Amino acid sequence: VQALFFGLGSDGTVGANKASVKIIGESTDLFAQGYFQYDSKKSGAVTVSHLRFGPEPIRSTYLVEDADFVACHQFGLLGRTKILEHAKKGATFLLNAPYGPTEIWDHLPADVQRLLRDKEIDFWVIDALAVADEAGMGSRINTVMQPCFFQLAGILPPAEAISRIKGFVEKTYAKRGEAIIARNFAAIDHSLERLAHVTLGAVADDLPAATLVADGRPDFVARVTARLMAGEGDQLPVSAMPADGTFPSGTTKYEKRAIAQMIPVWDQAICIDCGKCAMVCPHATIRMKVFPTAAVEGAPPEFLHKEFRSRELPDHRLTIQVAPDDCTGCGVCVDVCPAKSKTDTSHKAINMEPVAAHRDVERVRWDFFQSIPPLDRSLIAHDTVKGSQVLEPLFEFSGACGGCGETPYLRLATQLFGDRMIVANATGCSSIYGANLPTTPWTVNAEGRGPAWNNSLFEDNAEFGLGMRLALDAQTDHARRLVEKLAPALGTEMVDGLLGATQDTEADIVLQRERVDRLRQALEQVDGPLASDARHLLALAGDLVRRGVWIIGGDGWAYDIGFGGLDQVLSSGRNVNILVLDTEVYSNTGGQSSKATPRGAVAKFAAAGKGTAKKDLGAIARSYGNVYVAQISMGANDLQTTKALLEAEAWPGPSLVIAYSTCIAHGIDMSKSMTHQKDAVKSGYWPLYRYRPSETEDGKPFKLDSNAPSIPIADFVATETRFAVLQRTQPERAAELAALAQADADERWRYYEQLADVERTVPHIHRPDPEIVPEVESDAGYRYEREGDGA
Amino acid sequence: VQALFFGLGSDGTVGANKASVKIIGESTDLFAQGYFQYDSKKSGAVTVSHLRFGPEPIRSTYLVEDADFVACHQFGLLGRTKILEHAKKGATFLLNAPYGPTEIWDHLPADVQRLLRDKEIDFWVIDALAVADEAGMGSRINTVMQPCFFQLAGILPPAEAISRIKGFVEKTYAKRGEAIIARNFAAIDHSLERLAHVTLGAVADDLPAATLVADGRPDFVARVTARLMAGEGDQLPVSAMPADGTFPSGTTKYEKRAIAQMIPVWDQAICIDCGKCAMVCPHATIRMKVFPTAAVEGAPPEFLHKEFRSRELPDHRLTIQVAPDDCTGCGVCVDVCPAKSKTDTSHKAINMEPVAAHRDVERVRWDFFQSIPPLDRSLIAHDTVKGSQVLEPLFEFSGACGGCGETPYLRLATQLFGDRMIVANATGCSSIYGANLPTTPWTVNAEGRGPAWNNSLFEDNAEFGLGMRLALDAQTDHARRLVEKLAPALGTEMVDGLLGATQDTEADIVLQRERVDRLRQALEQVDGPLASDARHLLALAGDLVRRGVWIIGGDGWAYDIGFGGLDQVLSSGRNVNILVLDTEVYSNTGGQSSKATPRGAVAKFAAAGKGTAKKDLGAIARSYGNVYVAQISMGANDLQTTKALLEAEAWPGPSLVIAYSTCIAHGIDMSKSMTHQKDAVKSGYWPLYRYRPSETEDGKPFKLDSNAPSIPIADFVATETRFAVLQRTQPERAAELAALAQADADERWRYYEQLADVERTVPHIHRPDPEIVPEVESDAGYRYEREGDGA
Repeated sequence: VQALFFGLGSDGTVGANKASVKIIGESTDLFAQGYFQYDSKKSGAVTVSHLRFGPEPIRSTYLVEDADFVACHQFGLLGRTKILEHAKKGATFLLNAPYGPTEIWDHLPADVQRLLRDKEIDFWVIDALAVADEAGMGSRINTVMQPCFFQLAGILPPAEAISRIKGFVEKTYAKRGEAIIARNFAAIDHSLERLAHVTLGAVADDLPAATLVADGRPDFVARVTARLMAGEGDQLPVSAMPADGTFPSGTTKYEKRAIAQMIPVWDQAICIDCGKCAMVCPHATIRMKVFPTAAVEGAPPEFLHKEFRSRELPDHRLTIQVAPDDCTGCGVCVDVCPAKSKTDTSHKAINMEPVAAHRDVERVRWDFFQSIPPLDRSLIAHDTVKGSQVLEPLFEFSGACGGCGETPYLRLATQLFGDRMIVANATGCSSIYGANLPTTPWTVNAEGRGPAWNNSLFEDNAEFGLGMRLALDAQTDHARRLVEKLAPALGTEMVDGLLGATQDTEADIVLQRERVDRLRQALEQVDGPLASDARHLLALAGDLVRRGVWIIGGDGWAYDIGFGGLDQVLSSGRNVNILVLDTEVYSNTGGQSSKATPRGAVAKFAAAGKGTAKKDLGAIARSYGNVYVAQISMGANDLQTTKALLEAEAWPGPSLVIAYSTCIAHGIDMSKSMTHQKDAVKSGYWPLYRYRPSETEDGKPFKLDSNAPSIPIADFVATETRFAVLQRTQPERAAELAALAQADADERWRYYEQLADVERTVPHIHRPDPEIVPEVESDAGYRYEREGDGA
Repeated sequence: VQALFFGLGSDGTVGANKASVKIIGESTDLFAQGYFQYDSKKSGAVTVSHLRFGPEPIRSTYLVEDADFVACHQFGLLGRTKILEHAKKGATFLLNAPYGPTEIWDHLPADVQRLLRDKEIDFWVIDALAVADEAGMGSRINTVMQPCFFQLAGILPPAEAISRIKGFVEKTYAKRGEAIIARNFAAIDHSLERLAHVTLGAVADDLPAATLVADGRPDFVARVTARLMAGEGDQLPVSAMPADGTFPSGTTKYEKRAIAQMIPVWDQAICIDCGKCAMVCPHATIRMKVFPTAAVEGAPPEFLHKEFRSRELPDHRLTIQVAPDDCTGCGVCVDVCPAKSKTDTSHKAINMEPVAAHRDVERVRWDFFQSIPPLDRSLIAHDTVKGSQVLEPLFEFSGACGGCGETPYLRLATQLFGDRMIVANATGCSSIYGANLPTTPWTVNAEGRGPAWNNSLFEDNAEFGLGMRLALDAQTDHARRLVEKLAPALGTEMVDGLLGATQDTEADIVLQRERVDRLRQALEQVDGPLASDARHLLALAGDLVRRGVWIIGGDGWAYDIGFGGLDQVLSSGRNVNILVLDTEVYSNTGGQSSKATPRGAVAKFAAAGKGTAKKDLGAIARSYGNVYVAQISMGANDLQTTKALLEAEAWPGPSLVIAYSTCIAHGIDMSKSMTHQKDAVKSGYWPLYRYRPSETEDGKPFKLDSNAPSIPIADFVATETRFAVLQRTQPERAAELAALAQADADERWRYYEQLADVERTVPHIHRPDPEIVPEVESDAGYRYEREGDGA
């Protein structure tokens, strides 16, 4: 028996199939084989389980090509992924769908209908989501689908199969408590009741075949990206690959994964224009635009907008819009929305609704929304939440988990500086969702400007970014020397303007870009002996505009594997911005303990709860004096987050921003990700501060941005499974570690309060140090004569 | 013309010859070639310069085998190194010797006399040391020998040669001031006056041939080490090399380099028994022994001893003894000696005297001194300077520079714990002088116990040492389990004694060793079903005794290249002792700036003076809470140094000891190395402290061990060339950096004073954390189900 199962990462399909292989291998005389295909997308990626069973030893290689049994655990995959293509004639097909046996046929894509008929498939349907939901399992449908497989495949007698499945559930969830087991049992018991046979209908010739890639796609996307997405990468010729490995950015928007079951829907009557929903969205799928009233002329009637309340921008409208096919349905936006209906406080300005009822109209709205040009960046204050969210994000629709705590920081950074960012990205979650071949969430604005991005190794990312900085600085120096040399041809005014420009603010940078445009025009005209220099400068002119290097990675990189280099780069005095997305654990590789893991948390390699305290990375950086250091948490204080990123970018020396990032590894309800961050700060678990080596209003570099702790650490950590599991399994050790953690937090808070009072006596040097450049003339300095060299 | 020059590292021979090659190449039509041989010994290693000049292009390979001209710049090399073996018949030989042309012949080894006669050598002699000394050049004889070479080789007219040499000196020392140049000129001008021709005498058959290796050498030393020392390594068969790369330790004592011109001589009438001379000796060549009066029965009449003033040990004598052939003559012992003659305060209890006048008698004394057994370790307090210096050093006669600031810390550590040390040594000076093939300064005591030593890579030394710790712990666990299993054969008393032993103090460890000896005897008797376990335990019995892992390296390793690993090991909670020999610069590779280099110091890659502050490694380690951290300086407080090492070893978690190590790279008078360290502490440049996570008397972990700064930082740093050179070349920048350095030091001191008042509220866990061992049962802990894994 050969079986194929199509699921989505996180729906439990792979886990259930692994269990099935074990059950069959252990309780029958059959041989069993299982192979599981999945990619590096954090959520919503297709998983394929290949299972084989039989009385003879199985020597087949892994992929199943003629399946006796095919299951599709996600209705949305139908028509987007080749599923029935792999079924034998007469095979059994099990589909999870939100439609009953009589309705389902008319909701199938035409090519699926055709395959079902051509292959004479035995077709079964179940609304597994409904069963799981009723059993209190949320969207985890694995224990619903598994009994259906055993029922239809007939490998074990049905009663024995159910008993084996339950035994497995009991073993797996023993440590997680009775309630979890009871819910799984309920789901198992009700699954077969809802399994229904479907009579094949006629093929509807008028239903369009599903398209995988959105319209309007560029040539490369059509030729390469789309085929990779369709799983046809093996068939592409090598010549289709970019010779230098550079992939076009901004391609996630062509994916249209449509994985959400529920999406946020806007009620403009209640909205208070705060921008918080857009601020926290991990996938940049809920957006805010402000535009002149005239912009909605010609809008489709479905398009929603409201008055924008602003004295500076009268006669402007505001729209909050979801991208319905890109949203993952995580619900974080709704959780943070502060605007509630006066008559029904459960109704907010945005509310999660079933996607089926809203997708079509939201697609129309999204299309028009996209056609409205973004507001001029100079018309709005960037250092406010509302203002920042009117700016265009240049990081969108990544493959990060629903509710990801990391991605909102990246998206916000691209809104503030995206058109001049160069990113060195350490290996980890952010390098995976940051360039999840074949698509890239980093994108460009209408002028074609956007972040340049690269990933080197886990262990050298800080050095990699420092190299980018040194290269940019060298190119800028070279370009400036050429400008000086070309002064006779360019004229004093242009030369002085270019070389004397301050580039501290974004407005300064816009002016410098205009000067560079005029320079380029002038260079085109240069001939005679300076013509060759002019051509050279044409290639380097862009380097006269300041760009920001961002060195980005997780705590596994920053606290552990890349720490030696990070420390070296901090000590260099160079103008780099380091952003640490701190999930306190190696999230990408499955939850190994890092030096950022807090005391008492359970992680891999810390099965008994980590005994030592979280490393104080900020203190290490502050000890250099000339490093800007901020500890931030968007959910706790989105305004402080925004200010910290702006200050870090503006500081001409090294900056380190440590961003608290909630993660599925913490064992929390990810739809409450931002509320959880607020509690972390309230308890003193994650204090907020900014250490500013620049001149400050009051001469005090250390600014404490959160209030004195008001709830015990223990109350906060009890809400995370990684801590709670230790309280259940080793209550004494948990209590001991919790007491130490509380003492640490108390001591730290007292220390921070003292630190906030300290004035600096001598200002820090913030120009980059000359010494990182190897001396050209070794006689220039002091040389000691080492014995043994005989010198 | 082919010329060969034999010198010692640091005497300037190689530098002068490089200059000669340039002078001849640039000012004549001759072609020139120079090749320079030297090894990794820090001082006192032979250097050989091979020079060729001629009217035709030179295509010879490097080594000169038939020299027209041979110079021996160090009298001591004669008879120990093959020198005249490489001379042509009739060649010219120039010898630097403390004897005039009429006396010299009788001071030559017989085989040298024979070669001079057989080869009909034109023999010249000069007392270059006397000329250099008179010119104020100390022992730097290069500018004395160089004019003699030009005079005798006749390549340039003498007047032109002198003028060229002076030109070169002027260029080389331009930045170091007029005085240096004037001294060099004086040395040059007086050199030829003292050059004298020697008439060859008769070969004295009764003079013994010089021996290279001391008597009583073990077989391996005779077969392998001695031949490597004699420069015959290329002729050894591969089979002579140890198959596993393990070399015997304790072999430097067979070298007898006899490189000192002056050695310390003891005046027992003035000595006050303080032990400071032995404490500071970088080469363990001045030693203190205390012994019962009966031990001197049969002593040669030359042997000196005095009453040992001690109530606990009446009727004991004390001797301070130099090893005359191992001493480098650095003079540090005399500098620190606090006991002065009442009638002549320039006369101390030890005084530097010319070696020629004292070698013979000191050899006799040293031989007898060695025959006296060391005092029982339990009879003396280890936590005093005097007590520690009565303990036998197990690190001796290394190839470190004369006056080295690092080696006294290593020697002291071996006195305190040498018989149970396992050393992971990072690459750097300490790995070079620590295993300078063919000899090793790490040695063993009479029982054959001594440090085991290894060197892995620059970048992984901390991890290397952690691995040693984990391996030892695993072996101990295994041995303990075997003891339990063998209880029926061993009896309850023995088993309980072995497993229940505390091993906190050295006395505890001695008792445990005795238990292990009894265990071994008992195991020999075991037969029957447990015999195989007994044999297994016999191999592991030594692992029941606690051993200490020492992770050792310089600042280049600890602050830079190995810092990521060092930080990881500190965070592990494991019982390792990390000793950082902080010279504030990459000393071994020639003085590159490290993150330990202080603000304002000139180094390679910091030619304009380092602009950023020294990294605060101690603060980083203290932030973990459960790490013992000490900052020490032997010259400033030898008692605190001793206590810190003892506390670090006793603390069952990680320890970090940062030891201020004066170095030739600082540009100071190395004979005043320890006095300089005292000034560093007085100025607040190097505060002393101990951070103790263990329970302390007053509940305060941070103990400040030095007084408030009493001299300005600027006054202190002005005494080091690495700072002074910047004051001369870039006074404004030097002043700016000095102001910042003073502000940093002031802030740090205020912070330390506060820190010293802080009490700890909750004691730190100091048992090792279990988490570093990978979990065997992955279901044991909390597992989160990562999306994308599909689990």
